[in-house]
Amino acid sequence: MALGEFDLIRRFFASASVNTDLPPDLVLGIGDDAAIIRVDAQRDFVITTDTMVAGRHFPLDTSPSDIAHKLAHVNLSDCAAMGASPRFATLALCLPQADESWLAAFAQTLQTQLQQHGVCLLGGDTTSGPLNLNLTLIGEVPSGSALRRDRAQVGDVIALTGTLGDAALGLQLALQAQHLKDANAREYLLRRLHRPQARVQAGQLIRPHAHAGIDISDGLIQDLRHVLQRSNVGAIVDIETLPLSTALRHSVSNAQALDYALYGGDDYELLVTLAEPEWSPLQARMASAGMALTQIGRITAGSVLTARYCGQPFALQARGFDHFSVDDISS
Amino acid sequence: MALGEFDLIRRFFASASVNTDLPPDLVLGIGDDAAIIRVDAQRDFVITTDTMVAGRHFPLDTSPSDIAHKLAHVNLSDCAAMGASPRFATLALCLPQADESWLAAFAQTLQTQLQQHGVCLLGGDTTSGPLNLNLTLIGEVPSGSALRRDRAQVGDVIALTGTLGDAALGLQLALQAQHLKDANAREYLLRRLHRPQARVQAGQLIRPHAHAGIDISDGLIQDLRHVLQRSNVGAIVDIETLPLSTALRHSVSNAQALDYALYGGDDYELLVTLAEPEWSPLQARMASAGMALTQIGRITAGSVLTARYCGQPFALQARGFDHFSVDDISS
Repeated sequence: MALGEFDLIRRFFASASVNTDLPPDLVLGIGDDAAIIRVDAQRDFVITTDTMVAGRHFPLDTSPSDIAHKLAHVNLSDCAAMGASPRFATLALCLPQADESWLAAFAQTLQTQLQQHGVCLLGGDTTSGPLNLNLTLIGEVPSGSALRRDRAQVGDVIALTGTLGDAALGLQLALQAQHLKDANAREYLLRRLHRPQARVQAGQLIRPHAHAGIDISDGLIQDLRHVLQRSNVGAIVDIETLPLSTALRHSVSNAQALDYALYGGDDYELLVTLAEPEWSPLQARMASAGMALTQIGRITAGSVLTARYCGQPFALQARGFDHFSVDDISS
Repeated sequence: MALGEFDLIRRFFASASVNTDLPPDLVLGIGDDAAIIRVDAQRDFVITTDTMVAGRHFPLDTSPSDIAHKLAHVNLSDCAAMGASPRFATLALCLPQADESWLAAFAQTLQTQLQQHGVCLLGGDTTSGPLNLNLTLIGEVPSGSALRRDRAQVGDVIALTGTLGDAALGLQLALQAQHLKDANAREYLLRRLHRPQARVQAGQLIRPHAHAGIDISDGLIQDLRHVLQRSNVGAIVDIETLPLSTALRHSVSNAQALDYALYGGDDYELLVTLAEPEWSPLQARMASAGMALTQIGRITAGSVLTARYCGQPFALQARGFDHFSVDDISS
């Protein structure tokens, strides 16, 4: 029986971290979007690493520029989820061959995206082998203020940036498993798949107001469950409030749209929880910065995640995105 | 025409680093064993990342424990070359399947090696795909004191830890391209290939005495050339002084042993340069710590690397270890 990705990590590495004599400047180890180390009384570093594999995280015919964009934003999103300012990155590149035009396009987009977000590429390692791209990102945050998964409190508002499910439909389009007549909607949805925008600015704006944060990379329900488990709380989600794009709503049935929104991966939106009194001021700040933030539920006592649709019970599935259980997305 | 690994890195990433508005706390970017960032007036962080790919950096039948050991030490060696104390690491693991016994052996050895060197594993990323292992390591060093490639000075003694060429013969044994009757020598040489020992303690001991440092991962000549190029100096090497193990000398001809020592990869010894007056005190400190340090030549003015064998001219080749030009080491 195959182990799920999270079981793997937990079983073989998380425990080892607990058993060790942990250094005093380690604030948070394995298990969040990023680890946290205390630099000094003023600032912490958050550190995250994410790998993308051809045929697994993107279809084989994805352009080098799209791959670079996604690699940058997948990592920036982890930084955003902690409310941190991204600062430094290292790149580990494994390539089947030294293809100059591929590399030129990849490097240009990666550098552009990193620079736009204030990240300095420190260096890296290039090897020959099956295509595999890894970025490790270091961000900075005022000491003790990083958003974490384990800080949600009973009564907190649960809120989401952006819209959900677009990338999941985008993947179906990229794989030609689904077709759309509306060229604009098609382009928007493919862009949401290939060119996710990490919510870096939103994360920093939200940080002072929120208790907990996570980025939605493995599907809303799976990532929300991570927050609940780590915070020892439950939640109730109002399904009809889930933010869905016009393109998604007009392209598929309501049931399919909700399925993508609840269980689809690759959205890279932020889910945050915050005390009720913070909700109005934060929403006002977000609105004046031109960023959407939608309330989708509440943190509750206990450990159960329930959902309702216009007040009626709504059954949630245990599904989520797991690299060891989904089918290959080779096209 | 295939580009070499170093050309690749230089052309597409190093230049981008120069063109950017570099942050004031970046001390050293792309091009050394590790990058350096200024944490505060007391300490710098050095950051390095190294990837290992099955069939390229180790034969396909290498044990998970050997792979983990080498992954740890390849990265620790970059840290050692800077004279830094390793502190934190992140792991990115790409596995063909979630094999529990493979993972258990891998995780145990990796954690043991990291912990023995004072490294806390912060977290990581596990994905499904062709076997690929990446570690990013953060080390600590007093501000401004890290050993760098670009600090060698004319007249410096060039010195080496340990012995050279063992891993290159070890690889031939692992691939069964060569056979040895002497079981002890065989075991020692295979161990040098699969279980390199990063010279972390030596690096820290050498740091206050030396001008420049690098670890020998791509062959002595190639790595020495990196120091010369970055420091704008030349060198003369006395081939007969190269430190060779008894196992290597007794197993192959003198010419073959020298070939492995000069051009073989995976030695993970340190090459350092230091002013003449530092040589005796450093050698004494190394000896009392039970560590070998051998003088092999001198830094000269100009940009030429020359070699002599017992005073006679000795022709060097341009060869070195390059992941994009060597044959696969799949067994």
